[in-house]
Amino acid sequence: MSSTVPSTMRASVLLAAQSLTMEERPVPRLDPDQVLVEVTSVGVCGSDVHFWHEGRLGDWVVDEPLVLGHESGGRIVAVGAAVDGSRVGERVSIEPQRPSPTSRETMSGRYNLDPAMRFYATPGVDGAFAQYVAIQSQFAWSIPDSVSDDAAALMEPLSVAVATAQKGSFTVGSRVLITGAGPIGILVAQVALAYGASEVIVSDVSEGRRSAALEFGATRVIDPVAEDIAALELNVDTFVDASGAAVAVRSGISAVRPGGTVVLVGMGASEIALPVTVIQNRELLVTGIFRYANTWPTAIELVRSGKVDLDSMVTGHFGLDDVDAALRSTTQPGTLKSVVNPQN
Amino acid sequence: MSSTVPSTMRASVLLAAQSLTMEERPVPRLDPDQVLVEVTSVGVCGSDVHFWHEGRLGDWVVDEPLVLGHESGGRIVAVGAAVDGSRVGERVSIEPQRPSPTSRETMSGRYNLDPAMRFYATPGVDGAFAQYVAIQSQFAWSIPDSVSDDAAALMEPLSVAVATAQKGSFTVGSRVLITGAGPIGILVAQVALAYGASEVIVSDVSEGRRSAALEFGATRVIDPVAEDIAALELNVDTFVDASGAAVAVRSGISAVRPGGTVVLVGMGASEIALPVTVIQNRELLVTGIFRYANTWPTAIELVRSGKVDLDSMVTGHFGLDDVDAALRSTTQPGTLKSVVNPQN
Amino acid sequence: MSSTVPSTMRASVLLAAQSLTMEERPVPRLDPDQVLVEVTSVGVCGSDVHFWHEGRLGDWVVDEPLVLGHESGGRIVAVGAAVDGSRVGERVSIEPQRPSPTSRETMSGRYNLDPAMRFYATPGVDGAFAQYVAIQSQFAWSIPDSVSDDAAALMEPLSVAVATAQKGSFTVGSRVLITGAGPIGILVAQVALAYGASEVIVSDVSEGRRSAALEFGATRVIDPVAEDIAALELNVDTFVDASGAAVAVRSGISAVRPGGTVVLVGMGASEIALPVTVIQNRELLVTGIFRYANTWPTAIELVRSGKVDLDSMVTGHFGLDDVDAALRSTTQPGTLKSVVNPQN
Amino acid sequence: MSSTVPSTMRASVLLAAQSLTMEERPVPRLDPDQVLVEVTSVGVCGSDVHFWHEGRLGDWVVDEPLVLGHESGGRIVAVGAAVDGSRVGERVSIEPQRPSPTSRETMSGRYNLDPAMRFYATPGVDGAFAQYVAIQSQFAWSIPDSVSDDAAALMEPLSVAVATAQKGSFTVGSRVLITGAGPIGILVAQVALAYGASEVIVSDVSEGRRSAALEFGATRVIDPVAEDIAALELNVDTFVDASGAAVAVRSGISAVRPGGTVVLVGMGASEIALPVTVIQNRELLVTGIFRYANTWPTAIELVRSGKVDLDSMVTGHFGLDDVDAALRSTTQPGTLKSVVNPQN
Repeated sequence: MSSTVPSTMRASVLLAAQSLTMEERPVPRLDPDQVLVEVTSVGVCGSDVHFWHEGRLGDWVVDEPLVLGHESGGRIVAVGAAVDGSRVGERVSIEPQRPSPTSRETMSGRYNLDPAMRFYATPGVDGAFAQYVAIQSQFAWSIPDSVSDDAAALMEPLSVAVATAQKGSFTVGSRVLITGAGPIGILVAQVALAYGASEVIVSDVSEGRRSAALEFGATRVIDPVAEDIAALELNVDTFVDASGAAVAVRSGISAVRPGGTVVLVGMGASEIALPVTVIQNRELLVTGIFRYANTWPTAIELVRSGKVDLDSMVTGHFGLDDVDAALRSTTQPGTLKSVVNPQN
Repeated sequence: MSSTVPSTMRASVLLAAQSLTMEERPVPRLDPDQVLVEVTSVGVCGSDVHFWHEGRLGDWVVDEPLVLGHESGGRIVAVGAAVDGSRVGERVSIEPQRPSPTSRETMSGRYNLDPAMRFYATPGVDGAFAQYVAIQSQFAWSIPDSVSDDAAALMEPLSVAVATAQKGSFTVGSRVLITGAGPIGILVAQVALAYGASEVIVSDVSEGRRSAALEFGATRVIDPVAEDIAALELNVDTFVDASGAAVAVRSGISAVRPGGTVVLVGMGASEIALPVTVIQNRELLVTGIFRYANTWPTAIELVRSGKVDLDSMVTGHFGLDDVDAALRSTTQPGTLKSVVNPQN
Repeated sequence: MSSTVPSTMRASVLLAAQSLTMEERPVPRLDPDQVLVEVTSVGVCGSDVHFWHEGRLGDWVVDEPLVLGHESGGRIVAVGAAVDGSRVGERVSIEPQRPSPTSRETMSGRYNLDPAMRFYATPGVDGAFAQYVAIQSQFAWSIPDSVSDDAAALMEPLSVAVATAQKGSFTVGSRVLITGAGPIGILVAQVALAYGASEVIVSDVSEGRRSAALEFGATRVIDPVAEDIAALELNVDTFVDASGAAVAVRSGISAVRPGGTVVLVGMGASEIALPVTVIQNRELLVTGIFRYANTWPTAIELVRSGKVDLDSMVTGHFGLDDVDAALRSTTQPGTLKSVVNPQN
Repeated sequence: MSSTVPSTMRASVLLAAQSLTMEERPVPRLDPDQVLVEVTSVGVCGSDVHFWHEGRLGDWVVDEPLVLGHESGGRIVAVGAAVDGSRVGERVSIEPQRPSPTSRETMSGRYNLDPAMRFYATPGVDGAFAQYVAIQSQFAWSIPDSVSDDAAALMEPLSVAVATAQKGSFTVGSRVLITGAGPIGILVAQVALAYGASEVIVSDVSEGRRSAALEFGATRVIDPVAEDIAALELNVDTFVDASGAAVAVRSGISAVRPGGTVVLVGMGASEIALPVTVIQNRELLVTGIFRYANTWPTAIELVRSGKVDLDSMVTGHFGLDDVDAALRSTTQPGTLKSVVNPQN
């Protein structure tokens, strides 16, 4: 390991619901196939906020100290024994997952569905609100100089949108409806345009979010309180829910043309009443996204080429001492994406 | 038109809920691209029973006289001006639909989704409980001598099962769960085996239907009252609901492996509460079947080759005067498939 | 039929190899499902040039008078009995084919492969170097006001490029090699960029054509005389041959990554020696294009949105009396696309 | 490592072309993720014969001693440090490849295309003509008691046929043409039937091989010397070449229906003149097979269920001292598959 790497580091640790503390911890030791990344930027995700606020997320419970943060990038400062030393110094975006290489899902190219997955910032696996993190070398993706530190971190939510584009068969001329104009909704809108969509219709109850959607290229916005989506006969090719709201999911499904696709991305209630007859009579394909696999090269290309703008989505920067403030910021009006810079 | 065809025929006509009458009607006149079929066998479908019992089905209302019956076969006795006369005498199975040739759906090979579809035995389009019917020549599918009249008729529900197999990606080694062991469930089970499925698990509350499923090749049957499907960790590749029951749909979805497929075939409530989190976390593909397109050649091959046995599914034969009895028979214990033979 | 339509029209007719004549002919009579189009623009295609120069193309022989021209657009001036009269006045692009609606290929959505296809400007079916043409209503595609007459005509070769994009799985980040920078090669390059390709490498022996490729967005051009494509280790996702040259096809195949795709668009020798071991060891998918099906909506969207520029490809305009000159122009330096305007 | 495993073993080693010797070698040491397999059966493949006869195969040259044999099965007798000890005693079929877990090809589920692949019996990687071999645990596939030792070994060539079935989209009703009735051709025929093919047409110049094809279920055989395949208008859905002969490849491609598929499995000349115009005009998909990925579960299921019969294909058994005779046997009339049993 490089001599310039200290033996300890600072990390923001969640002890229990709404209880964060700063700890001095050993810098992670590397497995032979890992690299050590000095973290420069970490995006704040709704799941971080949920873990912090509730001390749990779905079936996951924070019953021992946990470092949050899974949207991250930085610079490689050391490598494991089996990794080419020339990687030291590379600026990278981190794909924060570690599938088992031998599961059936991994062997068939869907490693995100591996039941033995270890994922950053879930109980048992520390995340990136820290000065250093370790990751398998192949999941530290090199980025061009033109991509900022923050954009490196935000490749992670962008990858969710890329996975959505693939599931939703976005292509030239696609007509796409997106319900929910939070960070994921906005990213899906940008990605839809990058894939050639001719219409990108975004629905959100918040006027501020609808304005943001228009700024990022939506061709039309809808206030679902004022307009009944199901009655608009939008007849879209693909509907993406990025809200998790049951009413949005139901009305969106009714807006899809025969043979079209529905991708459920937003997380809400574990059960939602869906219009099964519509799904049947139109032979809709309904599916969901569980993270992503093999998306980073596409995400990086989208940012490199300027087709997706991540930097303009960042509405607030915080130091490692201010993770608490970063988490709280997400519910404030005007916040689209908050970012923690652990070296500050 | 051939001299052997009479000018009038007998037809069993639904006037209103539970009110059938026999009428003497003109034999259908043929469009240039149609053939006239002397009907030899007509299967009774649950939708016929529903129309008869309720006078409606979903949004369709029987507000003028309607001939029911859409599972039919027979013999070509006359052809329209644009059809090759050598077809007279052919034994055929009827695909009972008439899509518009110019719709986007038809042009792209999904003619079953054509919004302008005209389908037998739906309000405005008479069906096959009659001595003669007309159909576009390309939808009168020639059958080999080895296929019986009844089997010719039952190619229609078999086509539903073939469409299900295609949507469900049935192949060698597939593990399939089917909820509901009525005629469609049994057909899906037979088709799954024909496609090479290694496990075909069928669930039904009726012991008689579970026995029938075993006779037709199911590798395992489940009584969902006695066993909790969701708790069995079946981990199947494909789940097919052929029951329309909400509880079956929900428990079946929970039985699917990551990346697996769900095909909703049974018709029940228009909305059902579905486990959205399961669909998302396992990236399941959920879809439904609306009839079929381009399935007849496969259905005929399945019967010709002996891989699917339709004749053994017929549990009762009725004459054209006994359509009422045929419809009533479907709810009697021991009935799997009732057939009307209009020439009797 | 509208009273403003004359009973006769002028048409440029090919009698035999290199023998064109102007004839006064009856305006086409409409089938019930057809529209009559006053032709405003017709692109000159290499196949037109070949028919004119040789009097044949492959197995097709011009043994009776034939009107050439199959890239065309214009304005609907009359409609058949079964077509909505409100279409009169629409500006349209013509998809110049008439498949049988009942073939297996048409029923399954691949109508371009229908063996009974009737296609403009092939022996037995007159084309568009005339003042009026008839076409089935669904193949007369409405275009927006922002699309020029010439662009309406050139939707046809653009559709070849769209079909290529679909076969070649063009998407965001695709790396594409195109051999041949004639009109089709240039269109494929533009379409690749529109689908999000990150690299579009175009090879041509002509410096002028390489320059044109760069003007239309190619990210790199190669002179295959000076550089050995096979030695460049390009490792592209998709290789498109738009040259028909055996050496280009062979070297291009060697440039594809494992699991990549090859689309053979250019027409050359009927047999070409291909590197079978490369196809096997890399499991390449090799296919070809025979026209197109269901591509016009995408082509129109590409032009409407400005992602593809057809007007700038037109290097010469000719009147109906100058079809001979238009055909001859295609071999002149600086010609990319020649267009005939039959109303001039 | 288990105390029952000796420290040395016997191995049949190829020194140079046609020069085999028996060596006493150390039993392989295990990596943590490997298992040690006592080899019970090894099939003789054409590539073994070629390496032995020529001292090379394509670009591979035997320039240091090499153990041949890559179709093998046996019993686990020891496990590496990271493998569950309960696997000791399992009967297994060996998938003889070791891809890098981090290549793009592996991560996307196509590990057979990994450029860093290490494969049994290729220069640098010893094969299975030995008493013991080591293999990564996930590539030692457990087999049921009903599967014989020889069948365990022959899962490897069966996997080639399964990969072919997947590439060739074999399904119920498929019409398949196979040129070449050697072991791979016979296996592809058996697999086609198992996937539900209605017609399996096999061509071979040898009457004995045509007879074998009929015994294993071919529905029709053709002598290509007596009949011109291209003239038969077979119009098949899929053509599989298992001969490597240029004339077979060319005539077979001409026998495919529009939109059909060609899978090139046989290895012959590195370049073959192909009918490009046919590929284009019918939009055929032409591809090849490079081994297999994720096929073992299907192969095992095919044998377990009795749909494929491997044991009847074995025409000769040899001991480890008789590898030379086993290799020579492959060219003798009546030989379909020779097997070496290293414990004899």
